[in-house]
Parts: sequence; C-alpha cells; structure tokens
Amino acid sequence: MFYHVKQLQYNAKPTRPDPVYAKKLQEVLGGQFGEISVMMQYMFQGWNCRAEGKYKDMLLDIATEEIAHVEMLATMIAQLLDGAPAHAQDEAAKDPVVEAVLGGMNPQHAIVGGLGAKPDDSTGYPWTARYIVSSGNLLADFRANLNAESQGRLQVCRLYEMTTDPGVRDMLSFLIARDTMHQNQWMAAIEELEAPQGAIVPSTFNQEAEKQEVSYSFMNFSEGEESKSGRWANGPTLDGQATFEYDAAPKPMGQIPILQPGPAYIHGTPPEELRIQRGTGKMEPPGQG
Amino acid sequence: MFYHVKQLQYNAKPTRPDPVYAKKLQEVLGGQFGEISVMMQYMFQGWNCRAEGKYKDMLLDIATEEIAHVEMLATMIAQLLDGAPAHAQDEAAKDPVVEAVLGGMNPQHAIVGGLGAKPDDSTGYPWTARYIVSSGNLLADFRANLNAESQGRLQVCRLYEMTTDPGVRDMLSFLIARDTMHQNQWMAAIEELEAPQGAIVPSTFNQEAEKQEVSYSFMNFSEGEESKSGRWANGPTLDGQATFEYDAAPKPMGQIPILQPGPAYIHGTPPEELRIQRGTGKMEPPGQG
Amino acid sequence: MFYHVKQLQYNAKPTRPDPVYAKKLQEVLGGQFGEISVMMQYMFQGWNCRAEGKYKDMLLDIATEEIAHVEMLATMIAQLLDGAPAHAQDEAAKDPVVEAVLGGMNPQHAIVGGLGAKPDDSTGYPWTARYIVSSGNLLADFRANLNAESQGRLQVCRLYEMTTDPGVRDMLSFLIARDTMHQNQWMAAIEELEAPQGAIVPSTFNQEAEKQEVSYSFMNFSEGEESKSGRWANGPTLDGQATFEYDAAPKPMGQIPILQPGPAYIHGTPPEELRIQRGTGKMEPPGQG
Amino acid sequence: MFYHVKQLQYNAKPTRPDPVYAKKLQEVLGGQFGEISVMMQYMFQGWNCRAEGKYKDMLLDIATEEIAHVEMLATMIAQLLDGAPAHAQDEAAKDPVVEAVLGGMNPQHAIVGGLGAKPDDSTGYPWTARYIVSSGNLLADFRANLNAESQGRLQVCRLYEMTTDPGVRDMLSFLIARDTMHQNQWMAAIEELEAPQGAIVPSTFNQEAEKQEVSYSFMNFSEGEESKSGRWANGPTLDGQATFEYDAAPKPMGQIPILQPGPAYIHGTPPEELRIQRGTGKMEPPGQG
Amino acid sequence: MFYHVKQLQYNAKPTRPDPVYAKKLQEVLGGQFGEISVMMQYMFQGWNCRAEGKYKDMLLDIATEEIAHVEMLATMIAQLLDGAPAHAQDEAAKDPVVEAVLGGMNPQHAIVGGLGAKPDDSTGYPWTARYIVSSGNLLADFRANLNAESQGRLQVCRLYEMTTDPGVRDMLSFLIARDTMHQNQWMAAIEELEAPQGAIVPSTFNQEAEKQEVSYSFMNFSEGEESKSGRWANGPTLDGQATFEYDAAPKPMGQIPILQPGPAYIHGTPPEELRIQRGTGKMEPPGQG
Amino acid sequence: MFYHVKQLQYNAKPTRPDPVYAKKLQEVLGGQFGEISVMMQYMFQGWNCRAEGKYKDMLLDIATEEIAHVEMLATMIAQLLDGAPAHAQDEAAKDPVVEAVLGGMNPQHAIVGGLGAKPDDSTGYPWTARYIVSSGNLLADFRANLNAESQGRLQVCRLYEMTTDPGVRDMLSFLIARDTMHQNQWMAAIEELEAPQGAIVPSTFNQEAEKQEVSYSFMNFSEGEESKSGRWANGPTLDGQATFEYDAAPKPMGQIPILQPGPAYIHGTPPEELRIQRGTGKMEPPGQG
Repeated sequence: MFYHVKQLQYNAKPTRPDPVYAKKLQEVLGGQFGEISVMMQYMFQGWNCRAEGKYKDMLLDIATEEIAHVEMLATMIAQLLDGAPAHAQDEAAKDPVVEAVLGGMNPQHAIVGGLGAKPDDSTGYPWTARYIVSSGNLLADFRANLNAESQGRLQVCRLYEMTTDPGVRDMLSFLIARDTMHQNQWMAAIEELEAPQGAIVPSTFNQEAEKQEVSYSFMNFSEGEESKSGRWANGPTLDGQATFEYDAAPKPMGQIPILQPGPAYIHGTPPEELRIQRGTGKMEPPGQG
Repeated sequence: MFYHVKQLQYNAKPTRPDPVYAKKLQEVLGGQFGEISVMMQYMFQGWNCRAEGKYKDMLLDIATEEIAHVEMLATMIAQLLDGAPAHAQDEAAKDPVVEAVLGGMNPQHAIVGGLGAKPDDSTGYPWTARYIVSSGNLLADFRANLNAESQGRLQVCRLYEMTTDPGVRDMLSFLIARDTMHQNQWMAAIEELEAPQGAIVPSTFNQEAEKQEVSYSFMNFSEGEESKSGRWANGPTLDGQATFEYDAAPKPMGQIPILQPGPAYIHGTPPEELRIQRGTGKMEPPGQG
Repeated sequence: MFYHVKQLQYNAKPTRPDPVYAKKLQEVLGGQFGEISVMMQYMFQGWNCRAEGKYKDMLLDIATEEIAHVEMLATMIAQLLDGAPAHAQDEAAKDPVVEAVLGGMNPQHAIVGGLGAKPDDSTGYPWTARYIVSSGNLLADFRANLNAESQGRLQVCRLYEMTTDPGVRDMLSFLIARDTMHQNQWMAAIEELEAPQGAIVPSTFNQEAEKQEVSYSFMNFSEGEESKSGRWANGPTLDGQATFEYDAAPKPMGQIPILQPGPAYIHGTPPEELRIQRGTGKMEPPGQG
Repeated sequence: MFYHVKQLQYNAKPTRPDPVYAKKLQEVLGGQFGEISVMMQYMFQGWNCRAEGKYKDMLLDIATEEIAHVEMLATMIAQLLDGAPAHAQDEAAKDPVVEAVLGGMNPQHAIVGGLGAKPDDSTGYPWTARYIVSSGNLLADFRANLNAESQGRLQVCRLYEMTTDPGVRDMLSFLIARDTMHQNQWMAAIEELEAPQGAIVPSTFNQEAEKQEVSYSFMNFSEGEESKSGRWANGPTLDGQATFEYDAAPKPMGQIPILQPGPAYIHGTPPEELRIQRGTGKMEPPGQG
Repeated sequence: MFYHVKQLQYNAKPTRPDPVYAKKLQEVLGGQFGEISVMMQYMFQGWNCRAEGKYKDMLLDIATEEIAHVEMLATMIAQLLDGAPAHAQDEAAKDPVVEAVLGGMNPQHAIVGGLGAKPDDSTGYPWTARYIVSSGNLLADFRANLNAESQGRLQVCRLYEMTTDPGVRDMLSFLIARDTMHQNQWMAAIEELEAPQGAIVPSTFNQEAEKQEVSYSFMNFSEGEESKSGRWANGPTLDGQATFEYDAAPKPMGQIPILQPGPAYIHGTPPEELRIQRGTGKMEPPGQG
Repeated sequence: MFYHVKQLQYNAKPTRPDPVYAKKLQEVLGGQFGEISVMMQYMFQGWNCRAEGKYKDMLLDIATEEIAHVEMLATMIAQLLDGAPAHAQDEAAKDPVVEAVLGGMNPQHAIVGGLGAKPDDSTGYPWTARYIVSSGNLLADFRANLNAESQGRLQVCRLYEMTTDPGVRDMLSFLIARDTMHQNQWMAAIEELEAPQGAIVPSTFNQEAEKQEVSYSFMNFSEGEESKSGRWANGPTLDGQATFEYDAAPKPMGQIPILQPGPAYIHGTPPEELRIQRGTGKMEPPGQG
C-alpha cells in the first residue's frame, strides 16, 4: 500500500514558460525510457518477484521513488505551459515568428490537456505497457533495468543541453544524479547474481541440450572482416566456458524449405493444374455443404 | 545491399503439425524480444553507427544473421499449421475435445494468414517499432542488446520445455546456442567500451553538473530495511568513484507544487469566485471575438 | 513524493491456482477501465490541477489508493498462475481436456512473464495512455471519473460471477465496495461543481456565440419515432435554460460540398481533360526542376 | 440500413486556407473525444442494445447525426488544406518564416493524404477502437456519453478561441450548440434510468456481497486533510444509503504478500541455494527430456 | 448527411448461439479488411474527393452501404453471444469440456461488452485508422479498394467454411455476393481511369526525371533463377513503354556509407581517442554552460 | 539465409543537412506504405508461399531488394540530421526564425535517436506489423502489392517535389524508377494468375453458394444518380459473367433486429419491470452464491 506527501522529492521550478520545450520534455516522462516506464517496470518486477525478500524490497524502493520522478516532471511541464499564447487574438500570437515557434508545440497540450502534462512522449505518442519488462528471471530483468537507466540518463543529458533555463537544469541535474546511482545499483545487483550462477540467462537450462557447435562462434555475414578485430571475436568467452571463434564465411546448415499446398477450405492460391482446369466443371470446390 | 540463398541457416522441420504450439511460437518471432526485434534493432544501430567501422560491420553481421532466424521461425510456423482442422465439416473438428483444443489456436492463422506465419506475438499483438532501441550511443545500445538476448534466450528455453516434438526442439536448440553466443558477444563488446570510458552512460556529461549529493545513495522508500543487505547498498560503487550509501529514511527536498489558474480561453475549471458569480452578467467570458 | 508499506490494502489470497481465470482478471488490472487507468487518470488530474487545493488533495488521495489496488490485483494474478502445468511432460498437461482448458490461458503469462501479472487486458492488449483523461476542467473530468468507476464496478461484478473461489470473491468484494464509494464520491464532487456554475461544460463559453437554434432540439435521424417518448425529448432541459424540442424530420442546413482540384505537385487524380491529353506532349507536369 | 444526402448538416466553409489550423482541427475529428469516437460509440451501443426499443432508436438517431458531423469536419479540413505551399519551388515556401510556420503542418496531410482529412488526432495518432465504450449497461454507458460530450464541447470551444476565421467559427458554433443539446440529452436519459434503479452501477449486484465496511468511507492517503472539506466527505451519500465517513489515517487490512518460487521449467531466478551450487553437477536442471 | 432505417440490409439470424464463432466473426467486422475498414476508407475517399462528381457520388454510395454491413455483423455477433454460459455456477460451464470450449471465447465479449459486438478483430485487437487509405489519387486508391474487397471476400469465404449454421451461412452468402460486385466495381473503375492516363501511379510525374536505366529491370537478389520464368520477366511491360529485362546478378551502384561523428552535445559514442583520454582532464565535455 | 555487402544499392548522399526534411522522409521509410512495409510484406508472402517455386523465388528477390531500400533511406536520413543545431547555446539556434524552423523537426531524432533514422513515419508513429498483408492467396496479395507500390511511388514523387537538394532528388529518382518496375511487375503477375482462374478472389469458392441476386448490382445509397454514368454501372462485368445493373433505390431485405435481454449475471440494463420493482425485496439478483 502507498502514502503520498505533498512536497516533491526535488524542486521543479522553471524560470519561465517554454511550451516548445514542454513538448520535448515529455520524452522522459512518457517515452519508451521515460519515468513512467521505469516506475511501472520496477513495480511489476517487485510485485511478481518470487526470489528472496531483499530483491522484492529493493525493487519496490526504487519503484516508489520513480513515482516521485513522474510527479516532478508532470509538475514541471504544467508550469512550462503557463501562459502559452494559444488564443487567436493574443497579441504575441499575431507575430508570425511567434506563431511559427508555437507551431512546435504539441497541440494537445492546449486542446486536450488544458495546459497540463500528458502521459505521452515527445511526438505525442501515448505510453504503452509493451515498453516494460518483467520476466520472472531477475538477472534478465536487471539487464533490462541497466539498459533503461542508461538510455534514460542519455536522454536527460541531451535535454539538459537543449535548454538554458537554470530552474529546468537544476531539476534535470537531480534526475541525472539519480540515474548515476541507478546505473550503479543495477550493475551491483547483476554482479551479485552472476557470481554464483554464471553470466548466461537462464543459467538453469542444460547447456548439453543446446547446439554447442555454434555456441561460441562469431559469424561474418557481411562482406569484409573489420568485425574480426573486436573483443567479441578474440579471447575467452565472457561466460568462461570457451574461446571465441570467427567464422569468416558461414554456410547454411538447413533445408531448402518447400511448403505443401493448403487444404481446399482455406481458399489459398489454387494449385497450378486447378487454375488451368477452371470452368470445366471438373473441380469440386468447397463451400457446397 | 543484401543477397538471399534458398537454404535455411539451420533446419526447421517439425515432426507433426501443432497449430496450438504455432500460436505460442509466434512470441519469439514477433514479440517484444522476438527475432524481428533483434533484426531491426541491430540493423538500425548499424545503419546509424557513427563510430569506427568495426562496430558498424559487427552490427550488420549479426543483423543479417537475424533475418535468417526470422525466416526459420516463419517456415516452422507455416508447417506447424499444416492440415489444421479448421473446416466445420472436418471429422476431427467435430470432436468437442478437438474443437476445444483448437480454441487455443490464433484464429487469424486460418482466417487472415491462410495457414501462414504472422509478424505478431503469441497473443496476436502486432510487432511494433517502439520495441527497438538505437540511441547513437553504443554502450547504451549494447546493454539493450544484452538484455534482448537474455530475454530472448529465456523465452526460447521456456518454449523448448512446452513441446516434445524433436524437430521443433532441434531448431530451438540452435537458436538457444546462438543466443549463448550473442550474450557473450554483447558482454565482450560492453567490456571493450567500458574499459576506456567508464561504466556510466553517457561518459561525456560533466559529472560536476549533476546533483552529486544523491549520486551514490540508495533510498529506502519502502517500509523495512531488507534492501540494505544487497551489494547495491554496500561497498564501492561500480563506477569506482564512491561508496554506496543507504538512506534509511529519505526526505523530500522540493517545493509543495501549486499551479496558477489557466488563462480564460482555455476554459479550465473556473476560479471559485467566478463559479459563484455565474449568471450575474458580471463576468466577461471569452468567445465573443 | 510517495512511500510504500509492505502490507496490502486488503487480502489477495486465492484458494487455488486458476490460470484461465488469471487471464480474465487481467481486464480489471490493465484494461480500458482497469485499476492502472484510474490510478494514472487521477494522478495526472491531481498533478495538473489548477483549482483550489482541496481538489488536488482529494485527487491524489484516491490516486494513491488506486496504486494499492493495482498491487492487490497483480499479487492475486501471480498466485492464480502458481503451478500452471505449462511443461510438456507434466502429467496433467498430457490429458487432452486439461490441454484444451489451458488453451484458454494467456500464453504470455508463461512465456514472457514467468508466471507473473502483466500490465495488459484480458485479450493481452497492453495498457495505453490514450485511455486516460485529464482536461484541466474538473467538471468534465469528474464525469470521466464517474464513468470509469461505473464501468469498473460493472466489470468486477461480472468477474465475481465467473468464479466460485472464496478467496478471489473476498478480494473482489472489497474492490466492489470501494467502487461504490468512488461512484458516490464523484457524484458528490459533480454536484458541488454544478451548483454554482451550471451543468454544461465548459460553463465559461458565451452561449450567445453558439448556434442557439439547435441547442435544445432532439433530431430524429432514424425512421420511426420511438425516441420521442424519452425524458430527452420532453420537459425542461437539464441545464434549466429551455424546453426539449423534437425535430421529427431534420433537414440539412449546409452546402453541397465541392472541393477544388489540388495543385499539380500533389499528383492527385489528374483533371479529366488532362487525363485525356496524356501522351500528346502538351501538358507540363511538375518534377522537372 | 443507411441513406446519404449530398448536403451537409450545416455549412463547412472556411474563409481562407490554414494548413496549421487543419492539423489542430483533426483533434475533434479523430481524437479520443472526436466525432468518430461518438459516432462509433453510439452505433455500437445502439446495435448491442438489449433494452426496450426507445433506447435503441434514440441511440441510432444520435449516432446517425454524428456521421454527418464527421463529414462536416472532413470537408472543412480538406478546404483548409487548399493551396498549401508544399512545393519546394513555391515562392511563399521560400520565405523562412513561411517555411517555419508550415513546419507546424502535419506532413502526412500533404505526403499521404494529398490534401485530404485523415482519421487521426492533432498529433497524427490514428483513431483507435479502444476509445469507445459499449458495456451492455445503459446507465454506465450514458455516463460515458455525458463525459464524451463534455470533453468534446470543451475541445471545440478551445479550437474556437484559436481561430479568427468567421467561416470556421460558424461551423464550430453549430457543433458547440449540438454538444449543449447532447449534454442535456444524456443528463436526461441518466435521470430517467436512475430514478427507478438507483445511482450505483450495476444496480443488480447484491450489495450484501460487497465489503460494506468500506463502501462509504473517504480514505486520506495523502498527507494533510484539505480533502476533508468537500461534499464527498460530508453529508448523505448520493445513493441515499449512508453518510460519508472520513478516514484520516487509513491502515492496510491485507497480508504481506510472499510468492512461492516458480517451477523449474519456467527458468525464473534460481533459488538462492541452487545459485550457489552451480557447477557442482549436483543440480538436475530441466531441459533434458 | 445520413438517415437510418430500422430494417437490416439483409437477414442476420443465427440458428443457435455460438460464442466461439462470434470471436472468429469479429475479424470481418473490426479486422484489417473488415467492414469498418471499407466503410471508413470509402467515406474518407469520398469526402476528400477532388475529382469530378460521379466519383464522389459513387464512393459515398458504397461507403453508405458498408455501414449497413457493419450493422449486420454487429447484430449477428450479439445474437451468437446469447446465453453464453459465463456464470461460474451455470451447469453447462461446470463440464470441463464445455469450460475448455469456452476458453476459446474472447473474454471481453462477456466482461467488457456485456454480450455485445466489439469494434475489434478476432484476436481482440482494436480497429485502428492506420488500416485505411485515402491518398487523393483515385487510381492508387481504387487499387487499395480492389485489394480490400479481395482480402475481405477471401476471409468471409473462410469463415463460411468454419460454420454449419444455416442462418450464419445465409448472411455470409450475401456478403460474399456483394464482395463479388465490389471487386467487379473497382476493376471497372480502374479500367476507366487507366485508359486515358496509363497504368503507372502517379501518371503526372515526368518519367524523364526518374532513373530510367532501372525502370524495367527485374533484379534477381535470391540465388537461383526460377523467377526468370514469370510474365514479370518476359515480354512487354504492362505500361506499354518497354520490355522486361532480367538482371541475373544485380550489382550495387552506390557508395559505402560512412557517417561522421555527432556533435558533442548529443553524447553519442565518444570518438576512439576521446575514450582513451578519459580521466586525464584534457577533454572538455559539454554540459558546463 | 542472407548476406550483406557494404555498398548501397544506389547513392544516398545529400548535398546539405536538412533536419526538417529528414522528418518528412521518414514517411517512406517507416510509414504505412514505406520501405519497411514492402520489405516485410514480400518476406512473409515469400516464406508462407505454398504455390510453385517461381513465386516464392520472385517474392524473395524483391523482398531482399527492399531491405536495401530501407538501408538507403536510413543512411540518407542520418546524414540529413548531421549538425542539427539542437544545442541551446548554438549560435544558429538562438535566431528565433531558425528556432521556429527547427520546431518542425521530430524531437526524437535528437533526444532518442542521437541523430539517427527511426523506424517510424513522418508524424513519429512507429511502424506496425498490422500494415502488412500475407493471406496465402497470391492473387489477393499481388493486388495488395500493386496498391503498395502505387501509394509508395505517389508518396516518393510528392517528397521529390518538396526538396531542391540534388543529392536527395538523385536517390529519389532511383526509388521512383524501381517503383515503376514494381508496379509493372505486380500487374504482370496478376495478369498471369487471372488468365486461368478468373478475376474474382477467391476463385475456388462455389459461386452458387453466394446470393447471386446481388452479385452484379450497383446500389445507389446516396441521393442523386451521378454514379450511374461510370463503367461500374454499365456494360459487362469485369469477371465476364454478367452485366452491371444499377439499383437506383435499394431497399432493405433483412429483419428489424430485436435482441433478447441478457442473463442476470451479466448485469446489463435491468428489464423495465425490474427497474421499477427495485427496493421492494422481490427481485433475486445474482451475486449471492
């Protein structure tokens, strides 16, 4: 169960309205790697957690913090939209340059949201639950989390560069710092899980059942061998089980696929002989029952 | 540019049709972490790659291999759908138990696809480009790739357990082995990039500009302190810059947000005094121009 | 900012696993009117609220409660999935009737979620932010909220009828009771706002600027006049401004629309005379610059 | 069955083209509460109606009118797009300010639609059937309809303020008036249904089966008690069955959830002891059948 | 503007309920090529039509008929859902085979729709406006229409085979006949437009501006030359301008793409030399302004 | 299986960056009829092909070429984004007109993609697999393909007009030429299939089972008879089986639909008599088990 306090986790006070920047900032609120995504991802991982209690507790700690980040961003966006000259008779909006700049707004901020934040990304695309990951395997999921915090911090840093408003930058500097922590956190949690069980997910599948001839071979499907010089093609594999091989000219190992014709009631392409006999009354098509 | 050869990369030959399993197998073809996702993710990372050539080459090598995996899965699914008793007058379909089992099919496999594979997941939800990641920062993206291969191998292993068909298991054993390689590959590439630049993405943002007081602190937002015993709350941080702190009772640091009323032409909730004066003719509403 | 406590708001303890029912129960977790929808809807209305403080406070009270409802449902679903016979060699799964019943599962519960809840509805369709409403006009939004609680209680009542598990029914009886309260709550809040400002949203648009001839007329566009006998066609209008009229045979009042041909560089359908002159060399098509 | 007449229900004649406004106007054509939504919502409620005939007739009357509104908006948008300077060699488009203003167009209006209206909202997001509601319970659905007409009129009023074109304003004044009627209509229909059956949806669920201890209690989950002063926390409940209570400090009533580990074939996080034993050959993982 | 009459265009009377078939039949109501798609496609083509009047009139004729087809299907589905044993205590539902068969229902038909039709396809995926086509070029769009009627008739024929209910088959026989007409109609309209303007869309683009060396060459990108024996590689081209060529071994004609590094404020992958210098204090990262 | 070569199929070299045009060009990369759509459509048709080998070979030839077109467009877009003045302190970006022009960029190009192409359309909407068609009936699918190439060439021609950059125009002239070939190709393939089997899809459904009274009748549902003068209402039908009829005043042929009330456990609208008896204790609602 949850409780709310009125103060924000950190300040969200812009120096001046900026409705065009408000549209951009939506990315880290409702985009693929925005705060709604990490909030929901950590919540579902926590609620679904079947491992020992410290993982569930840790996941719900950070999930609960992320709701506060969503709250800060929504509050910031609503203030960036203050006083947007959206009225046709507004003096500012009559200036064609101002009008043109406002063309960069998300029109839904005025028409639909009444100058409020939306759970959407910077193109206006709505947040979707297909963004999140909760697989029941914590090592897999912590890798998803490390990725999310890496993409997220990258996007916030880019947004930091796109504004000079000190109030906005102050809030972003807080989010960037928390993402530094959260990248560290997931790396630490990954290290803790990999140590005993090994690095390959899932660790419980019997490797003898996999096609081991191709388990450690880099296959060069693109003309040229620049790809030969990377760590992924040289030295011991990262799971400690083998040495990387480089297959410079991989060959197909499978059949040439030939599918049998479908049954008549599917009405697929008629077989060639049936196409030619059409109209002779010899065929007995389905659909007469 | 690309060329095609007719042989599959590896065999895709089921022992017998199984339309219910065909529906399940769609997950690793067109789902969030299916082969279409990794194919498109690696392609776009390769085409957008602005780093030195070996990365672009390596990305397009693996991207090109993944098209072959999509091809194997599509071919397998089409064969699992052979002879599905979808006709109402089919003897098999008249048995209520068979009818019930067939209720577990994806109806679009017959109605829409004519017994062909679809670019959808196991619930019939279509593949969407919002699944993929290409950020222009390779360290961030290689973490996305490691996650994708972890989730992908996990799902294929689960599907392996859900069938006893030796032909299907043979094909899956190949995909599982390639995912073993691909997890190793991305771990190797990550190691190669982290060594010089450090582990935090992006490494080029000046850390002095972030709110460093909170860069290494685990915040306990959930009652109880089980989360204190993990690696994420003890010892040196993984970026080597600090020591993890544990904030047992994090406090809000921000303002209580109060938004100003919107302009009249937005027609938001009228201010309280205006709500009360309604009908007196004193207010001058917009919409008269 | 938010805090979490470990206990659930109310018990979520099924008597026995039931993976088919787990699929159905997803509707009120991640469907159009599920608990994620009301949680997010009330959160955004609260964060965007520009009216006096008691509304913001009330909205965040109920929003915070709704996170707890999401938590209860996710926990219930994970338990309903316990021990699902998803393994091909499981004895239970070899019985064709059991196999058929399991065909009614959501396959992603096993393959993707590892026996965990998903943020999706009962067909597996992901929750989308386009479900929610936050307009900046509280009277409009409270009507959205009353609708959401009406649809929500209706769905939970239907789900109550679809199970006999006393543990599941116990949890649902709690959610139904809260929906009773929440319907009452929004009706009360609507009454409080309508009293001073009137019932039509938005109240601040000058009604003289609307086409008042058609403001109170029911138009009968469907053959027959059964629709004449309802309250909506008789007596005073609900805003107290007029009397309902019934237009038994509404006539069009507008122009016959004729659009002008598009410019050449759009390459729309060529005008008829140009279609006929084709090949004579007389036309000067675009695309030569 | 349906018939069409060529005249529009009301005039749709802009004074001048305005492709940027055309983008905005798409919101009330193809957005969440646009005319396509109400057209489809009333159609499906009418076709699915199992109540007495006057409701089905009334629903199809208004549904049929709404098709005419879609027609008016599509016609208006096509004319607002007339002569858009989308050609690179167009004189107007060479002016950087004009170019900038045109950056506010929806590019699909030219590239995809050839200067025609699209069934999308103002961000270009396509209309989706998940917007509509048809539950089989008319009281629930009429609340959805009242909400739709409230949000819809609000959005049209905002769009009215965003233009000074008298032709556009004339058409919008008609739509605003019809929305006045339609809000009145649904309030009247709600009143008619609530009178005999009471205000809580569904009225047929036995209230003794709900957890009545919490059926009338406002729970204060957010610090501070501003929410205590509203109608929703004081006086008789709107269903006439009780008095509102205010629970200033709600306590959790449920269990602390602990999930059991998943079965081996799910390959979730291995139990702690199994993680540590890895590599000793003692464990018997699945995947060997 | 539109009018409705109460009779259906043709009978929609099933002989008995069949909720599993109701799920399947949704495909031709709300699927990619269902009746909602053609209704909306023809409507938007008609409303956006800038060609001479007979085309607009014809498009709105058929669009208006398609609303009646949607109505017939929705009515049929609602009746197929009559008496579905969705109640847990229903005798029929206690039989495990019946329970299993009902697992093939769309659960939303009961929980969300209250035994009503939904605007979704047979997997429960909602109809989306991205299905439709209205380009402003009638020849292009009539090809889209011919395709839609071809896919549509194919799907209805398949559904015809999947039932033995004479009432359902009677209705489908009507829809199949209308699709026969509509395929003929669009072929006729295409013939009428192609005759004067030629077969290539758009006909108004100056062909001298295209890269004519590759305008009539079939390129063999797949190993083997089976594709050489088709009409598409032999004889005059269908636009009457050339003869098909067969390029057995197509060669790349473009550059090897090398992208330049991004600017510093994008925080992409750091250039190799910068990665190595990290920590020396020599670099001047962005983010200091 | 597939191989990659480093050279592009044709040059993709813009003369100068143009981030606003980059947004527009996304339409033919990731839009409904962009290159991803045709690539995936031809791939799935090829993999699912159950007809003789030359069709499968031909489909995979063109599918493989389309991957190269996706590659060219992605490469072009990345270069058009070079040097976009997205930094707040960039001199160029401080000019309000430049700022306004940049408002026409897709913000995700900078924030999410790091100046890389995205698999989305020109509004930022992601590519979805619901765009593609693979029905198992080649005649149906070749019509889909002819439509796709017609819409595609139309869109590329429009984009050609919207730029004056000779490098961009050079690449587009190649794509336009290939679309000329591909329209010819699908027309040729259609001709080859129609000759033996006739023009109506599917040809194998017994036409005696369709409602032949309405198989060749144009129905005039829209007031006025302009639609009478087209080829679709005069002369022999295109399948050679009949003569077009014109039904100037089509009449409904079906029943007036009346649905029976739903069962109690669905909690639909209560029957009228039950609504009135409420509260008398006489009714026995469900929900007591």
